[in-house]
Amino acid sequence: MQKLKHILYRIIFGTETPAGRAFDVVLLWAILLSVLTVVLESVKSVRVAYPGTFQFLEWFFTILFTAEYILRILTHPRKYITSFFGIIDLLAVLPTYAGLFFLRSHFLLTVRAFRLLRIFRILKLGRYMHESQVLISALKKSMYKIIVFFGVVLTLVLFLGTLMYLVEGERNGFTSIPQSIYWAIVTITTVGYGDIAPATVLGKFISSVAMLIGYSIIAVPTGIITVEISDAVKSSQQQKQLTCPSCDYREPDKEARFCKKCGTKLE
Amino acid sequence: MQKLKHILYRIIFGTETPAGRAFDVVLLWAILLSVLTVVLESVKSVRVAYPGTFQFLEWFFTILFTAEYILRILTHPRKYITSFFGIIDLLAVLPTYAGLFFLRSHFLLTVRAFRLLRIFRILKLGRYMHESQVLISALKKSMYKIIVFFGVVLTLVLFLGTLMYLVEGERNGFTSIPQSIYWAIVTITTVGYGDIAPATVLGKFISSVAMLIGYSIIAVPTGIITVEISDAVKSSQQQKQLTCPSCDYREPDKEARFCKKCGTKLE
Amino acid sequence: MQKLKHILYRIIFGTETPAGRAFDVVLLWAILLSVLTVVLESVKSVRVAYPGTFQFLEWFFTILFTAEYILRILTHPRKYITSFFGIIDLLAVLPTYAGLFFLRSHFLLTVRAFRLLRIFRILKLGRYMHESQVLISALKKSMYKIIVFFGVVLTLVLFLGTLMYLVEGERNGFTSIPQSIYWAIVTITTVGYGDIAPATVLGKFISSVAMLIGYSIIAVPTGIITVEISDAVKSSQQQKQLTCPSCDYREPDKEARFCKKCGTKLE
Amino acid sequence: MQKLKHILYRIIFGTETPAGRAFDVVLLWAILLSVLTVVLESVKSVRVAYPGTFQFLEWFFTILFTAEYILRILTHPRKYITSFFGIIDLLAVLPTYAGLFFLRSHFLLTVRAFRLLRIFRILKLGRYMHESQVLISALKKSMYKIIVFFGVVLTLVLFLGTLMYLVEGERNGFTSIPQSIYWAIVTITTVGYGDIAPATVLGKFISSVAMLIGYSIIAVPTGIITVEISDAVKSSQQQKQLTCPSCDYREPDKEARFCKKCGTKLE
Repeated sequence: MQKLKHILYRIIFGTETPAGRAFDVVLLWAILLSVLTVVLESVKSVRVAYPGTFQFLEWFFTILFTAEYILRILTHPRKYITSFFGIIDLLAVLPTYAGLFFLRSHFLLTVRAFRLLRIFRILKLGRYMHESQVLISALKKSMYKIIVFFGVVLTLVLFLGTLMYLVEGERNGFTSIPQSIYWAIVTITTVGYGDIAPATVLGKFISSVAMLIGYSIIAVPTGIITVEISDAVKSSQQQKQLTCPSCDYREPDKEARFCKKCGTKLE
Repeated sequence: MQKLKHILYRIIFGTETPAGRAFDVVLLWAILLSVLTVVLESVKSVRVAYPGTFQFLEWFFTILFTAEYILRILTHPRKYITSFFGIIDLLAVLPTYAGLFFLRSHFLLTVRAFRLLRIFRILKLGRYMHESQVLISALKKSMYKIIVFFGVVLTLVLFLGTLMYLVEGERNGFTSIPQSIYWAIVTITTVGYGDIAPATVLGKFISSVAMLIGYSIIAVPTGIITVEISDAVKSSQQQKQLTCPSCDYREPDKEARFCKKCGTKLE
Repeated sequence: MQKLKHILYRIIFGTETPAGRAFDVVLLWAILLSVLTVVLESVKSVRVAYPGTFQFLEWFFTILFTAEYILRILTHPRKYITSFFGIIDLLAVLPTYAGLFFLRSHFLLTVRAFRLLRIFRILKLGRYMHESQVLISALKKSMYKIIVFFGVVLTLVLFLGTLMYLVEGERNGFTSIPQSIYWAIVTITTVGYGDIAPATVLGKFISSVAMLIGYSIIAVPTGIITVEISDAVKSSQQQKQLTCPSCDYREPDKEARFCKKCGTKLE
Repeated sequence: MQKLKHILYRIIFGTETPAGRAFDVVLLWAILLSVLTVVLESVKSVRVAYPGTFQFLEWFFTILFTAEYILRILTHPRKYITSFFGIIDLLAVLPTYAGLFFLRSHFLLTVRAFRLLRIFRILKLGRYMHESQVLISALKKSMYKIIVFFGVVLTLVLFLGTLMYLVEGERNGFTSIPQSIYWAIVTITTVGYGDIAPATVLGKFISSVAMLIGYSIIAVPTGIITVEISDAVKSSQQQKQLTCPSCDYREPDKEARFCKKCGTKLE
């Protein structure tokens, strides 16, 4: 029994054995197909042309993934359930069952797409893994600055929204402060749908100032993330530094051949 | 009397005592609720559903904050009134009183949101404070460059607006030079509402050139702010350098335990 | 005669004497007012309210600036005419005279706004001058890279425009290849007016790919300019290095008090 | 025969001989004119005014470029056919022949514009070549990070599209998940056409969050590319370092005249 569990573990979670690799490849294709099914079903002309097909496919994939989820819990019960992929795997089957009670909720099955991110881990392409970690560490480090930045931006946006609500009023589409805040965010992020746009002279003046000031301010997250990526890249390069095997001295000169502290040959 | 003033000071301005912390927490919630009140009132359906409620709540919070403002002046009269938060605290109660004379001016109560920025100071979360200071110092240093940049951009935008006013004319929505300047700012900041868009061939050509040139130019503030954030981060890391207490030598190696100039043990 | 010329030169071009400074201040105000006149005239309601006023003011300022231009040529004939400001000063009076032949051309008088850029030179605020030079030198250095970049972008935009002209066709607003190129530039610079937008499924797919690819590509000028600004800032800081007055050694340590090469006291 | 081939090779591929240079200049002008022909033909009013002219010009240029393509294959048969410009040169004549079978396909002749990129190679302007290589090497290095980034963005955009399809529904233009994904890409890249925009309160709230989060995320490619350009610029500057001819020591000081390790005169 314990041995069966171990074999299953190596197939489901591992990628070293041929069976384990085959399992992962089949799984990724199944996920891709199941996401495609949901996306296609949402297109009316396709849905009408193949009635019943999509419901069948959704239940088919859901039962498949439910079985896989139960197997995963059984073979690796401890940390899996509360891990990122454990939660995603659960969310990836729930919408179909929820669809029995709530109409249309089964479209949320596209959450399965997040399971595809496993591809970076499965492929074990060192290069991609390494680059992902550099990006993640950069984003993590910039988190505190980004939170402070968003605190200030939200306050500005709230005040700007109020101002425009008073200046433009309900006639020009600024029907309430939440609506005006939506407009302010659309403007400051430079998305600019144009579904709501200032119509009065004063409103246009305030918008112009907001765009110019806002543009400089919105340059801040770019600046923050650029600096952190730069640091993360540098520190990942430093980890590649030569380290002396006998005295642990870190040699910054990459072309050094002997440790300059104890003379041990490097590498 | 003097002692009472001191106790009040510690409660209102301080965050070390339990009473001081409780005061700040209650205050932040009151501000949040009062801002929410104003935002909700602006939504017509909500306003109609609860007549009178909002007027009551606004006066309730205003009287509360007025009392708090007076207490703050009494306990810490010197620098407070002219400080950033002193001015914001005053602006946060004025709109209700102004509402007696000017219709709808009470919506400006959302200016209270700026009081919420106090949260960074109150929480005394070193990390957030530190990151805010890095950002502020970066923005301060880039100020001169940004002013020069905006001088050039405003001139360009004025000239571009005139050109489009002549080329497109009043038929196509470019009804005056100020209106065209508004269009030029919307275009150069890449917001692009589309409420005014070029209709003639020449107008579209000029716009295309403006967008391409403008895009490169607008990359400048991002560049400026990125460089300054980079410097600010570096210099904030340097402040963490070890400094020898006897000879003031700055040791860049953070793991050094003795000053390499005079042998004094480092902190 | 020669002496009068010298005195006029110091008043008109110089900023050291009280008369020179007064001349510049009056000039800047006159330029500002004359630009404001043109901008206001373009607003129909204002133009109708004060008939004749604007024509008078335009001729008044034009004659004033023509006189100034002639004086400038007389007192500093050599390099002035072909300098940047020499050309701008000429362009700043021509539109009024051209207005005798071409209707509405006098609105181009807003070109005078460029004369206001003189303010950075006149104020002789070292700080602003210095920051301008850092920015200009950064933009100059990045020019070659930007030209290469624009060569590639224009080719891409031309091909993308053709593709969308074929896919979307004249029904959906893509009436010709130049029109489609205009759309491609509006899209790739992320301006996105929405006056022309893809309507077919294939068109939307191509647009989506273009936006994502285009977004990465358009990040390139920001990158180029950021790097050059960073270099320009660094090299401007190096110029502030201490230089030994006796042996010309450049001391990078800004807190050094004696030259470490020859022992001379620094600064 | 072999000699004729060599002479033709020098004229067609080389740029050192006067004949070779003349060939390239004529070729570039012919390409430019042929692209202009196609672009002009797409404009209805022009096409109607000169019937037949464009068909003649297209066949004229196509036969010319076909002859050139055959000559290129004959004189330099090996690597040319499969090289970047070999493929572009073929694609640049195919659309006319394809036009015999497929209506309007001849507009794809604008692909010829890519042949114009040869200008950077032909001009042999060292400066431009060098800058291109710096840019290309930066983009190549950032490729892995950009792929990881796009994997995450596509997943996010798919999920966001599904969410908005459920929240907004077909009434408000979100007619299917692919349509909603198109909207999500338009929003996250800050293009914001406004052809589809959220209409419900919940939809606007989700959009606002998506814009703010998305804006920070989209700053990542800018950060990645900036860092890589910075590195590419630095390493291209290091190649300019002086290297001692006798001991291979790399001298960072560009004004050094003797190797500081072995005293050999540099350069």
